[in-house]
Amino acid sequence: MTRNIRLKIAYDGTDFCGWQKQENDRTVQGEIEAALEKIHGKHVAVTGCGRTDSGVHAAGQTANFFTELDSLPSGRFSLALNSLLPHDVRILDSAEADTGFHARFSAVSRTYRYQFICRTLFPHERLYNIFLHRFPDIKLLNSYGRLLLGETDCSVFAGSGDISNSKNRYIYNSIFFTEGEKLIFEIRANAFLRKMVRSVAGTFLHYEETCTEPERLRDIIACGKRSGAGPTLPPQGLFLWNVEY
Amino acid sequence: MTRNIRLKIAYDGTDFCGWQKQENDRTVQGEIEAALEKIHGKHVAVTGCGRTDSGVHAAGQTANFFTELDSLPSGRFSLALNSLLPHDVRILDSAEADTGFHARFSAVSRTYRYQFICRTLFPHERLYNIFLHRFPDIKLLNSYGRLLLGETDCSVFAGSGDISNSKNRYIYNSIFFTEGEKLIFEIRANAFLRKMVRSVAGTFLHYEETCTEPERLRDIIACGKRSGAGPTLPPQGLFLWNVEY
Repeated sequence: MTRNIRLKIAYDGTDFCGWQKQENDRTVQGEIEAALEKIHGKHVAVTGCGRTDSGVHAAGQTANFFTELDSLPSGRFSLALNSLLPHDVRILDSAEADTGFHARFSAVSRTYRYQFICRTLFPHERLYNIFLHRFPDIKLLNSYGRLLLGETDCSVFAGSGDISNSKNRYIYNSIFFTEGEKLIFEIRANAFLRKMVRSVAGTFLHYEETCTEPERLRDIIACGKRSGAGPTLPPQGLFLWNVEY
Repeated sequence: MTRNIRLKIAYDGTDFCGWQKQENDRTVQGEIEAALEKIHGKHVAVTGCGRTDSGVHAAGQTANFFTELDSLPSGRFSLALNSLLPHDVRILDSAEADTGFHARFSAVSRTYRYQFICRTLFPHERLYNIFLHRFPDIKLLNSYGRLLLGETDCSVFAGSGDISNSKNRYIYNSIFFTEGEKLIFEIRANAFLRKMVRSVAGTFLHYEETCTEPERLRDIIACGKRSGAGPTLPPQGLFLWNVEY
């Protein structure tokens, strides 16, 4: 009997060239498919909810695959995979899903988190946080965040090489808050353009530094010119935090 | 004019074979001496407050060296070194010290911190925290911690290969507390035996799990037999947190 198995996956993106399998580079999808091949004795394709860039981490990536292996209960795939996977990828959970479940197309939304630290980073923090040389005005940043809510043309935030036809995305949530001494930016949308989260965060911090009024930023976003965006931030502090179905 | 320069150093111990220079292995002292050699055009020896084991991190290691280089103000050595050092070592501060200052012999005490997380670790946390499969009884752990305060024979906690003559150490502080969702063990002593912090934490958690009375643990410590100790914990969650002068 064929089962559709859904995985919840966390990884440290530091030593990966992102999620998506590539011929010669180490990727998360590549490692999971290699582990599944050891379990099944043949190639098993894994579908992820979405790609993450090189250096981006995940606390809740979702993927699915089909198996005909009757000997392993669905909940046991996590243990079996973890015993074969390198330590920078962990399967948090495995469970049987409906036949129609598709990690990418069934997803309602994705949540990303960016972690910032507003003091000199210790070396052990450098791969998981972005250094900010000042503590920004959270209220102003959140007034920018509110501009994105709902159906929004995100052209201004599209990374070079983004090939989506429509640049409209539905943004459910876009908020800055503190957690201990960290500043967190959390954004949830139905989907994201290439490098969009890194561009949104970089743009907001760029305009916040010069105390730009939200009305001005609204015009820049509406204009949709890439030149209006601030710098694209590095991937280290970014986490694919959760996928909602 | 010869100046004695004191450095405050942080490092991510993951890819180092500890602090102390070795012929063929990557060490923190080795990297700093290599950077100083580039600045001075000749070898400059660095004295650290103490060795840290392979995989142990530092947020406040201290070291000193003597320089005859007149062109660089004392506070600028941190910048010059950081521009030459790999990203897993950072000089937090450099300042001129008295001629008599010796990073190791002038130190009054050292503070170490162990970080524990009492739920499945995310991959990005695995190199900086120890996983605990349960939340321990902090009150009981702290009743153990109090047994160590003052001048204590620490033979029971001496790692194999410890060659100190006296195993007596003066413990100023030994406490467990929570910080966000982390459990922290902080210990400050005039000096430590080899792998002692890892053994103290492992022993306390071992006896706490079976609700051992502090009186019983006092006897085990007084007895001084290595076989009385619990497991030596792995180095990942341990930080040389500060050195006091």
